[in-house]
Amino acid sequence: MISSKITGTGTFIPTLKKENTDFLKDKFLDTDGTLLASENEVIIEKFKAITGIEERRYARKEYTSSDLAFFAAQKAIEDADIDKEELDYIIFAHNFGDVKVGSIQSDMLPTLATRVKNKLKIKNPNCVAYDLLFGCPGWIQGVIQAQAYIKAGIANKCLVIGSETLSRVIDKYDRDSMIYSDGAGACIVEKTTEPDAGILSHATQTFANEEAFYLHYGSSYNKNEDKNVRYIKMFGRKIYEFAITNVPAAMKFALDKSGVEIDDVKKIFIHQANEKMDEAIIKRFYRLFKKPVPEGIMPMSIHKLGNSSVATVPTLLDLVLKGKIENQSVQKGDVFILASVGAGMNINTIVYRY
Amino acid sequence: MISSKITGTGTFIPTLKKENTDFLKDKFLDTDGTLLASENEVIIEKFKAITGIEERRYARKEYTSSDLAFFAAQKAIEDADIDKEELDYIIFAHNFGDVKVGSIQSDMLPTLATRVKNKLKIKNPNCVAYDLLFGCPGWIQGVIQAQAYIKAGIANKCLVIGSETLSRVIDKYDRDSMIYSDGAGACIVEKTTEPDAGILSHATQTFANEEAFYLHYGSSYNKNEDKNVRYIKMFGRKIYEFAITNVPAAMKFALDKSGVEIDDVKKIFIHQANEKMDEAIIKRFYRLFKKPVPEGIMPMSIHKLGNSSVATVPTLLDLVLKGKIENQSVQKGDVFILASVGAGMNINTIVYRY
Repeated sequence: MISSKITGTGTFIPTLKKENTDFLKDKFLDTDGTLLASENEVIIEKFKAITGIEERRYARKEYTSSDLAFFAAQKAIEDADIDKEELDYIIFAHNFGDVKVGSIQSDMLPTLATRVKNKLKIKNPNCVAYDLLFGCPGWIQGVIQAQAYIKAGIANKCLVIGSETLSRVIDKYDRDSMIYSDGAGACIVEKTTEPDAGILSHATQTFANEEAFYLHYGSSYNKNEDKNVRYIKMFGRKIYEFAITNVPAAMKFALDKSGVEIDDVKKIFIHQANEKMDEAIIKRFYRLFKKPVPEGIMPMSIHKLGNSSVATVPTLLDLVLKGKIENQSVQKGDVFILASVGAGMNINTIVYRY
Repeated sequence: MISSKITGTGTFIPTLKKENTDFLKDKFLDTDGTLLASENEVIIEKFKAITGIEERRYARKEYTSSDLAFFAAQKAIEDADIDKEELDYIIFAHNFGDVKVGSIQSDMLPTLATRVKNKLKIKNPNCVAYDLLFGCPGWIQGVIQAQAYIKAGIANKCLVIGSETLSRVIDKYDRDSMIYSDGAGACIVEKTTEPDAGILSHATQTFANEEAFYLHYGSSYNKNEDKNVRYIKMFGRKIYEFAITNVPAAMKFALDKSGVEIDDVKKIFIHQANEKMDEAIIKRFYRLFKKPVPEGIMPMSIHKLGNSSVATVPTLLDLVLKGKIENQSVQKGDVFILASVGAGMNINTIVYRY
């Protein structure tokens, strides 16, 4: 039985820290353009209580998303100890391309995957480089695509990257802008014939009826700003309801397919979107098995790193595998679940034996 | 042996005709911002002699790329006579997202694949919708990805779309802007167990060293324009040399892999980038087999439709299969080749038995 395993991970955490207090002087407006009634201190306190976010990271202005991706990719290649020239695929998940500071355009020509291949100085033309847009679940979907190529016999080794500079597509008049951050994570996915190892099962869904525009590109809440300039916008309450309803079911579907018992799941690496939402998802997931949530099952990085879209899951995985999150580790043979939800609305999950 | 076949095609050809004479009053500048020495009549005549383009199509301003894609997708679904709810994947190849007239931003949130799924009113959440960025070869790559999912056992039916509105990312001071057009093409890819049918072989390459930026996003040639606003730009001469060197070899590689004899190839559907370049590629391809180019082997649509990036190959295929190009047809059992080259620089090719 052919499957895939992750043989190396790498992450790039931007150096610029943006703390919650840095938003104290911002003017947060309501969707209709009026000033929010609460003081910023209150808004920020409430924001922190729900999302868990204390600070987030922004990329330095000389870097674009493909630069962050390159830094993470280098580390993943080194960690996997492979020859970069043996890569069959570079799959780059993002949603906004390279956005330079001072520009509102997304630059994706050439693709960001090509830019990373160029920076890595890979000569082999048979290493296919492409970009994948799939909302926040893009990186997990890239791993699922790599697995498909490996099973189909057209790849043995793939580099899968998730990178984003959300700090460059946010409306500063929108309090939701405090959620978003920049970052990059990468991994090497390799073919394995080891039984019951690596990817055991996976599932993906796209909800595109009324859910399609829960996350979208929209104008600033400040009606004096150019209406034609758009920013990342979300209907937070709807997303919350959507996620806690549909993500647990998708996770259960994949776990059932894998044949692994719920008690054998050792960790769940979930997209760092919002701490309260993530907790609610996990609670409902365990409720489907009539079980309480095991302590420490869900490592979190959102407090210090915010929501960096496609980058959160590979970053979190890398941090735990490298022993960089207190009291969190994964042992050889452990089963973990990767799960994400985001624009599309897309949901995906992988059940994995390390 | 599991493979895939194309069971339906559809295309949307925008209604606005832009003729070569419509460019007579434009100011074409050199890369350094100086006015080109030749009269526009001469520039246009030379342009037509090289590219073959007499006219091209632009989308009406109320439509974006995902609208064109929806129109083409509807026709492909109807042509394949399938239930849209049975689709496992919607793969949407593009390079610039939805660009509204009057905006310079690419809107890809949510993905264009989600927008098409939304417009098609597909309810099934297990139909996974994502966007693929791979330069002009994106649509062929989407078909290759569909084949991988089918071989890996995670899909039976996929909708693959290529759609682009290049008219909205061109620098009107650049004579190369005359090449580009708008359009959309789509197909349904389905699992087949029929022996020696459908996709027989395929090949893909990404050249990302010095070639990476042969096609890129760059400032206007008019130095008075905002430098931060970028447009599609190309090094035409370098692309020409690159393409005639590398595309024939990739096509031969795939043909050898398929086991089909060169004399059994009945048609070659090649990306409509530039007539002279396409002719040179085909000539060199046949030269690799020490054969002359068979008459009528290469249907062309560039004269009337220009270069619509990802849309040219599916559009051309649809036109020929529906008997809409004079003296061109494909019979059951015929072998044809699909081939493309573009930004990345990416090359791909599929050998197919109809």
